[in-house]
Amino acid sequence: MSKAGADEGGGGSSEKALQQAEDETPEGKFPGKLSAVISGPGWTKVTCPCCATERVEPLVLVKLGANVRPETKRWLIKLIGASQKDGGAGLLAHPGEDASGNIVVVSAPRCTLLRAAEELGLCKTYQSGDMEAFSYNDRDNFKDSDNTEVFLTLAERQFMVKYELDGLRAQRDLRIPGLTDGCALQNRDNVWQKLGSAGVIVDTFPLHNPEQLKELSEAWYSGNQLVQPLDSVNGYFGSSVAFYFSFLDFYTWSLLPPAILGLSITYFSGEAQKEVVDSVSGAQVEEEDEDHGHSGHMIQAVFSMLWSTVFMEMWKRRSSSLSYRWGTLHLAERFAEPRPGFHGDLGVNPVTGRVEPLFPGWQRDLRMALVSIPMVGLFLGLVILGMLGFYWGEAQVQQLHTDWDSLVSQTLLYVPSVLHIVYTNMLATVYKTVARALTEYENHREESSFEKHLTAKVLVFTFFNYFAVLFHIAFFKQDVPLLRKRLASLLIVTQLVNQVTEVAIPFLVDRFISAPHRAESEDDPQEDKFRKQSTLPVFPGLFAEYIELLVQFGYLSLFSCVYPLTAVLLLVNNMTEIRSDAYKICKLFRKPFTPPVANMGVWQLAFEVLSFVSVVSNCWLLLLSPRLRGLCHEAGMSSTNILLSAVLVEHFLILVKVVLSVLIPDEPDWIRRKREHIEFTSMEALKLQKLQPDKS
Amino acid sequence: MSKAGADEGGGGSSEKALQQAEDETPEGKFPGKLSAVISGPGWTKVTCPCCATERVEPLVLVKLGANVRPETKRWLIKLIGASQKDGGAGLLAHPGEDASGNIVVVSAPRCTLLRAAEELGLCKTYQSGDMEAFSYNDRDNFKDSDNTEVFLTLAERQFMVKYELDGLRAQRDLRIPGLTDGCALQNRDNVWQKLGSAGVIVDTFPLHNPEQLKELSEAWYSGNQLVQPLDSVNGYFGSSVAFYFSFLDFYTWSLLPPAILGLSITYFSGEAQKEVVDSVSGAQVEEEDEDHGHSGHMIQAVFSMLWSTVFMEMWKRRSSSLSYRWGTLHLAERFAEPRPGFHGDLGVNPVTGRVEPLFPGWQRDLRMALVSIPMVGLFLGLVILGMLGFYWGEAQVQQLHTDWDSLVSQTLLYVPSVLHIVYTNMLATVYKTVARALTEYENHREESSFEKHLTAKVLVFTFFNYFAVLFHIAFFKQDVPLLRKRLASLLIVTQLVNQVTEVAIPFLVDRFISAPHRAESEDDPQEDKFRKQSTLPVFPGLFAEYIELLVQFGYLSLFSCVYPLTAVLLLVNNMTEIRSDAYKICKLFRKPFTPPVANMGVWQLAFEVLSFVSVVSNCWLLLLSPRLRGLCHEAGMSSTNILLSAVLVEHFLILVKVVLSVLIPDEPDWIRRKREHIEFTSMEALKLQKLQPDKS
Repeated sequence: MSKAGADEGGGGSSEKALQQAEDETPEGKFPGKLSAVISGPGWTKVTCPCCATERVEPLVLVKLGANVRPETKRWLIKLIGASQKDGGAGLLAHPGEDASGNIVVVSAPRCTLLRAAEELGLCKTYQSGDMEAFSYNDRDNFKDSDNTEVFLTLAERQFMVKYELDGLRAQRDLRIPGLTDGCALQNRDNVWQKLGSAGVIVDTFPLHNPEQLKELSEAWYSGNQLVQPLDSVNGYFGSSVAFYFSFLDFYTWSLLPPAILGLSITYFSGEAQKEVVDSVSGAQVEEEDEDHGHSGHMIQAVFSMLWSTVFMEMWKRRSSSLSYRWGTLHLAERFAEPRPGFHGDLGVNPVTGRVEPLFPGWQRDLRMALVSIPMVGLFLGLVILGMLGFYWGEAQVQQLHTDWDSLVSQTLLYVPSVLHIVYTNMLATVYKTVARALTEYENHREESSFEKHLTAKVLVFTFFNYFAVLFHIAFFKQDVPLLRKRLASLLIVTQLVNQVTEVAIPFLVDRFISAPHRAESEDDPQEDKFRKQSTLPVFPGLFAEYIELLVQFGYLSLFSCVYPLTAVLLLVNNMTEIRSDAYKICKLFRKPFTPPVANMGVWQLAFEVLSFVSVVSNCWLLLLSPRLRGLCHEAGMSSTNILLSAVLVEHFLILVKVVLSVLIPDEPDWIRRKREHIEFTSMEALKLQKLQPDKS
Repeated sequence: MSKAGADEGGGGSSEKALQQAEDETPEGKFPGKLSAVISGPGWTKVTCPCCATERVEPLVLVKLGANVRPETKRWLIKLIGASQKDGGAGLLAHPGEDASGNIVVVSAPRCTLLRAAEELGLCKTYQSGDMEAFSYNDRDNFKDSDNTEVFLTLAERQFMVKYELDGLRAQRDLRIPGLTDGCALQNRDNVWQKLGSAGVIVDTFPLHNPEQLKELSEAWYSGNQLVQPLDSVNGYFGSSVAFYFSFLDFYTWSLLPPAILGLSITYFSGEAQKEVVDSVSGAQVEEEDEDHGHSGHMIQAVFSMLWSTVFMEMWKRRSSSLSYRWGTLHLAERFAEPRPGFHGDLGVNPVTGRVEPLFPGWQRDLRMALVSIPMVGLFLGLVILGMLGFYWGEAQVQQLHTDWDSLVSQTLLYVPSVLHIVYTNMLATVYKTVARALTEYENHREESSFEKHLTAKVLVFTFFNYFAVLFHIAFFKQDVPLLRKRLASLLIVTQLVNQVTEVAIPFLVDRFISAPHRAESEDDPQEDKFRKQSTLPVFPGLFAEYIELLVQFGYLSLFSCVYPLTAVLLLVNNMTEIRSDAYKICKLFRKPFTPPVANMGVWQLAFEVLSFVSVVSNCWLLLLSPRLRGLCHEAGMSSTNILLSAVLVEHFLILVKVVLSVLIPDEPDWIRRKREHIEFTSMEALKLQKLQPDKS
């Protein structure tokens, strides 16, 4: 807001101020030393007097290109330090060792942080004890607002620094010192993007706080804790990471009922050994009709169908209480500045009345309908094509093998699988690039909306990729034993492979290959410690973690009636998953920037959709089951009647699920009341505010 | 709000003020004459100086019991006239001819109306031209706010009078003059309810404005208008009536595409004559396989399934624009006083911070789950029992008739039908009382929530009552020709009967029986004209009108594939329906009080649910159709495969409908922007308001 205001007011005065700031700074002097928590010297001056403090906490590291000239670095530091009125970021910058080093350490003064908290729409504890939308003007009535390190979490402070840097826009056409004219900034250009593409800035990432990290990791995964320190996770890694771990936690506990049911069914039907042997060895043990075994499968299926709805509804309630607790219930992204990549004609935003780029919604819809959807469809088609090609190839080599039966033909048997895997992986890589380009082309205004559309695209593709073969087996080949075999091997093998690739390998690499290079000694200057963090790989985001859960959930709900032990296996897997994911994010990667979010976003929808699709797939699988068919035929039902009753049961279950999800409110009563209270006070405020100009 | 404030501040001062007011009024004096638009004398004094005006418009008539003593009437008039601070209604009252007459005419001063407009959360045109939530403090910036007759519609003003009267609560224990001690008021008793149960007040109803009514009826139904004057309807009858007529209008126009399709299909398949003859004569003409005739039915079915979703989504958009235009987009019922019938322990409302009765939500949920739902289920069971009894009885008398074949047995043939009709009607009457009692017992806080739950209960029952037989024929008897016959006769006969009973009879009764008694002459005193309005029957509400539309829509969508001409018949019916409904509400009934509403409420949901159920029923009916079966068998499909493909088609259509309803936004873009703008300004206001106490 303040920046936009400056944009409008722009022109002469701010130019002068920036010029002045440039003149004032002692250009050649050596800056002060950096220390873990660095005090005064070396940092740019704070523009507002109330924020002057002895202690400055380094929050974000900006890594510059190798051949960036000192004048460019000085200009950049000045820009970061200049007040927002003068077109700067209103932050604090420190040049590291000297003016020629390739890092800039950035921190933020209190006022900038608090203003950003208001702009983002964060809620904080009011003096009354309730969470209220933070307001800069009313800051004194919020608890601890004088101590930003308590008031705002580390993740929030770091995100705010990034938010301010990303929001930097040139206020006039200007040449960057030390760069060619080709890289000159034009009015309203996004400075950070431009510097990135010009090679000045290589990387921007938040710095770890070693003490907090140590504390967190001890409370999180190093012991035998049953409960995760979710609030600390939210504080250190931000709400999007905390939501993932909360969901993982909630999901794991929710697996207990189906796991117990699955265990008892398997135990009582005495199939435990047989099934495991069956599925692992792949031998097609003859189907013996076991009455109670089969009714067990049906109970399991019906139970898991209803369970999945109750689980999702309860999670929504939990999610909204977490979001209240973490102050993200009223995020104001819609009213903030558009995301950096957003472009459009300058105009007055009809909602906020600010001048900013505008892009008509119908044009975005058109782009989605005419470009994105056909492209996604094309790639899904390619997946199917690949699968068909694989089956065709397999049939061919089988034929060849039976005809020739040589060593060569035996080797050939593996060719289709290998080709298919290569094809699928290539397709997935290409698709990810395409999906990002498509979403960029759709030109979303908000970062969250961009993420949502990108995730949705990749999600649909990945899910399709995982399940196409299983669906093919279930619905076209209608081969339940093969499906069961596949499912068991997927569940066991994939989980093992995942655990190994996700944790063991990175751990070993980290321990024995990277770590020696990163060995820290107490004497190292702080700059080197910071610089070492940049050698860690970039955190790949939560997509892979979420999709793993979704696929698991898919196995569990879509095919629950074929393999009752799924829940047990998943429970065991998740117990270790929590720890390994926590270890990964704490130790193996660079700390990520995480925007505050109010829920899991598109993943919630994906889980819900899956839970409805599961009814259809389970009913169909039960129908296919030869034992049930046999039983029904014995009871004198025609196959049409069996089908009819399956359809009836399916419709009934879907109805029950819809009713359940409508009846269970999405937020607990106390949250609803708090939310309504906030709505009420802001309505009252609107009335009072209108009174003000009237009186004055 | 103001009243609640007075409650808290209550005690001494207000009592004195009321006492004072009582002393001041000239008790025995004859009041001035009433005239059509009555000026000054005779009316109680306006409590606030800015509202003093020459011209007072009579809005609401309160009819008193026959043996109400003059001191009671005087007390009542004083109460109505006293300011809200003193526990009165802040309205204007006129005693009619004299202090002993049995009517009190009520009007409202400007300030009371404007305050009520704010409390209700009405939006009005701001000086910028946008609709904004009205704020009393900011009244000067709203267009026409100095002239309430332009600023607020007649319906709004009248509803506000009722709102203030209904909201009257005793501020201390007090005896009503002229009544026994048994009728004494206790602190916080609802005055209007108490007076009603004590027999003091017999009726409270809004008065017609003959000139406006004449204008409206000319523009509405007396000519050959294609377009209804919806804004005037909203102004005169209020938004709930206007929403009904808007929906009827929208629905009628939307029937054009299916009607044209139905006509052309019937024409091209050459079945028009045959089918009509078939359905009316009831002769079972032999089914001749007609290929294109049948594919026509399928096209019709698929079209109408998709049409119904698009129709409902488009209506939602239309509905939200209407609600914006009529200023009901931000109703604040949740934040207002609870409805008069609401009871609970006094406490502080956590949302608004006011002292009022509170009732925990879980207790309401419990009452619904343990009492309401089982009771409704019981009645639905009774409907089914009745239907089964009817079928059993019919089989019995058929048997008897074939055995005996006499005149007596022929008469007996009608007995089951007659008994069933009597039973159904009795059940419906009992159910209506039960439903109201149950909803009252559920103790809803808001009037709209009460209405919603009551309507939902009656709706489910009525719908079940209407369709149980048709579903029985379609799904158990699986007799498509009988279904078609029933449907055609229902469509034609019911519509004729409805038109006659709804319009012709009331018209005739009104013209030849009631009207002579009500003949008005210019010389009649105004009081008698008012009093005559009370001889009209009470407006029965829109339930019957809506359910008629819903049942029609049910015929159209649930069984569209059996009788393609449904849409044509409904189109013709609706054309006259609009006029007859308009005539009815204008002429045949007393003017109703209508609360401002933002949409059709529970009816919207009912139409949507029906449109989804229709997919299932249509697919099933197509499946049953013997011609389709024959065709498929010829093509070599087994009956299982036919069933399977029907299930596939059904799932696909439901998926398409879900996707359509998600993709079509529920409100047009411009409404979304306006709404977000209001949210934004109130958020900004909240921040500014917090600043105020800080500074002062």
